[in-house]
Amino acid sequence: MEKINAVITGIGGYVPEDVLTNEDLCKMVDTTDEWIMSRVGIKERRILRGEGRGTSYMAIRAVKQLFEKTQVNPEDIEVVLFASTTPDYHFPMTASIIAYQTGCKNAMTFDMQGACAGFLYALETGSNYIRTGRYHKVLVVAGDKMTAITDYQDRTTCPLFGDGCGAVLLEPTTEEIGVMDVILRTDGIGFPHLFMKAGGSAYPPTHETIDRREHYVYQDGRTVFKYAVTSMADVAAEIAERNHLTQDDIAWIVPHQANLRIIDATAKRLGVPLEKVMINIQKYGNTSAGTIPLCLWEWEDKLKKGDNLILAAFGAGFTWGSIYLKWGYDGKKA
Amino acid sequence: MEKINAVITGIGGYVPEDVLTNEDLCKMVDTTDEWIMSRVGIKERRILRGEGRGTSYMAIRAVKQLFEKTQVNPEDIEVVLFASTTPDYHFPMTASIIAYQTGCKNAMTFDMQGACAGFLYALETGSNYIRTGRYHKVLVVAGDKMTAITDYQDRTTCPLFGDGCGAVLLEPTTEEIGVMDVILRTDGIGFPHLFMKAGGSAYPPTHETIDRREHYVYQDGRTVFKYAVTSMADVAAEIAERNHLTQDDIAWIVPHQANLRIIDATAKRLGVPLEKVMINIQKYGNTSAGTIPLCLWEWEDKLKKGDNLILAAFGAGFTWGSIYLKWGYDGKKA
Repeated sequence: MEKINAVITGIGGYVPEDVLTNEDLCKMVDTTDEWIMSRVGIKERRILRGEGRGTSYMAIRAVKQLFEKTQVNPEDIEVVLFASTTPDYHFPMTASIIAYQTGCKNAMTFDMQGACAGFLYALETGSNYIRTGRYHKVLVVAGDKMTAITDYQDRTTCPLFGDGCGAVLLEPTTEEIGVMDVILRTDGIGFPHLFMKAGGSAYPPTHETIDRREHYVYQDGRTVFKYAVTSMADVAAEIAERNHLTQDDIAWIVPHQANLRIIDATAKRLGVPLEKVMINIQKYGNTSAGTIPLCLWEWEDKLKKGDNLILAAFGAGFTWGSIYLKWGYDGKKA
Repeated sequence: MEKINAVITGIGGYVPEDVLTNEDLCKMVDTTDEWIMSRVGIKERRILRGEGRGTSYMAIRAVKQLFEKTQVNPEDIEVVLFASTTPDYHFPMTASIIAYQTGCKNAMTFDMQGACAGFLYALETGSNYIRTGRYHKVLVVAGDKMTAITDYQDRTTCPLFGDGCGAVLLEPTTEEIGVMDVILRTDGIGFPHLFMKAGGSAYPPTHETIDRREHYVYQDGRTVFKYAVTSMADVAAEIAERNHLTQDDIAWIVPHQANLRIIDATAKRLGVPLEKVMINIQKYGNTSAGTIPLCLWEWEDKLKKGDNLILAAFGAGFTWGSIYLKWGYDGKKA
């Protein structure tokens, strides 16, 4: 049996049109553009508005764009895997809605929860489907409607988050391209520092949980920053070293977009200049599982076959990790 | 590269001690033991009580039991995968809590949402990790605290659900045992017939969603029954046929425990007598992702290496499927 690699062969993305600027936020909470820019580097973020619109609204559009660009037949898709912290419903899985609305009639579907590292977890999971030789077209969709769980009375967290979604198609190859190496870690010590208290089976929703504003992201920003800045840089450096990638070998760093200072630290640690780091946090903020695929989507036309990409993310759990990806095709599809 | 199969090498389970009988339910809603027994075949179900106790409370106990029985070192576990409709929190993933509380220090962790077919989806996902040759110890945990999303004012759904959780260890083997064949399907046409309206990104929780009782399972029982009874029997028959398994070759059918009439129909379709069907619905009700691992857990001492098992499930989405499993060891571990 020849060794099968999983390679990304197409990408789609979607961000809502509505923009929420730092100036807008200044009218809602006690903050300033300078404070937000100096702390996290976010200028504006996209907001999905509309009654009853969940994350699938964006995911469906990202997938449809991917199908248009790649000319893949939706009926050939075997797996639709959706990574999100903000699925439309508790059940059924949002992946079943995405598959239904995009014509993936023959796919099995499931959702994954990997928080801000969700795309990395989903990419490795989809890759393992491909690597078995049993699956040939796996759709990995990832993104969040973070505004659904953002408290716009909390000045420390409401500037951070935005809405967006990306989708990649994974296919098998026997070439030495695609997902080359993976490090994924979890440490449950992070739980109390970044979580959402109510709405799950531990604390089902009540009038009291709503009044206590427990259906929103809680973050102890100082502690999370401390762990994130070290862990993300460390794991990116570790995967580069064990694959003997020097700073010159790395074409792009593709970091989770939570905080510009964390992105800077990761780039510095790898000795890679900022021109080779995908950064769109200023426009979109933290779209959780959406950040990395949205970067790949925006930079697609600059990518070349064989480019060495280092993906890295850190999030709730704590979970974090890095993936070494050798890009599979030249430039933008369609 | 030799072909690697994924085989279950150990199992643990946990159901809460508190019992809710049909007699108890008669005091809460307008129902009778006869009505419940004739419609779905459930006599009693287990209930997880206790402030702040989510599904992880049961999952942790199932995993600890598995570790005791198999003497596996938790630090050797590489992946903890948790399938559930009722995770403790929206984030972080409940798998990170389970891993932390059971000493799985070196595992990557993520949650999966596959509704009532969740264990089948998780078993195939875990198996694909194993089949790559890159992972050697994957923990698949599955279960639900369905009582957290059950409306005890709705006489049609409140008798159906219970709480429980199972866990299996997957390891690689080059023997012809383990997960032999898989059929997993999704059809989004099922969405409006079985879902929970509020609490996700489509309809975040408000006082109004709580007053409208939208944080509970909604089921159009007649429609779901119609689809389920046909789909589960069909897919189980399909996997048996394509693997040339006659009724004599099948040691056990392991059906999702949602309704005794659906279980009966599946057994009849395969021509397998009820003595060879694992049924514990009368004691536990529908524990969603928990039903199949809880059956394997209860019947473990009767299983022999090489036994042909047909697993089958149907649930929200709709999602459904069947797995042909060749059992990996004799009798009960420890």
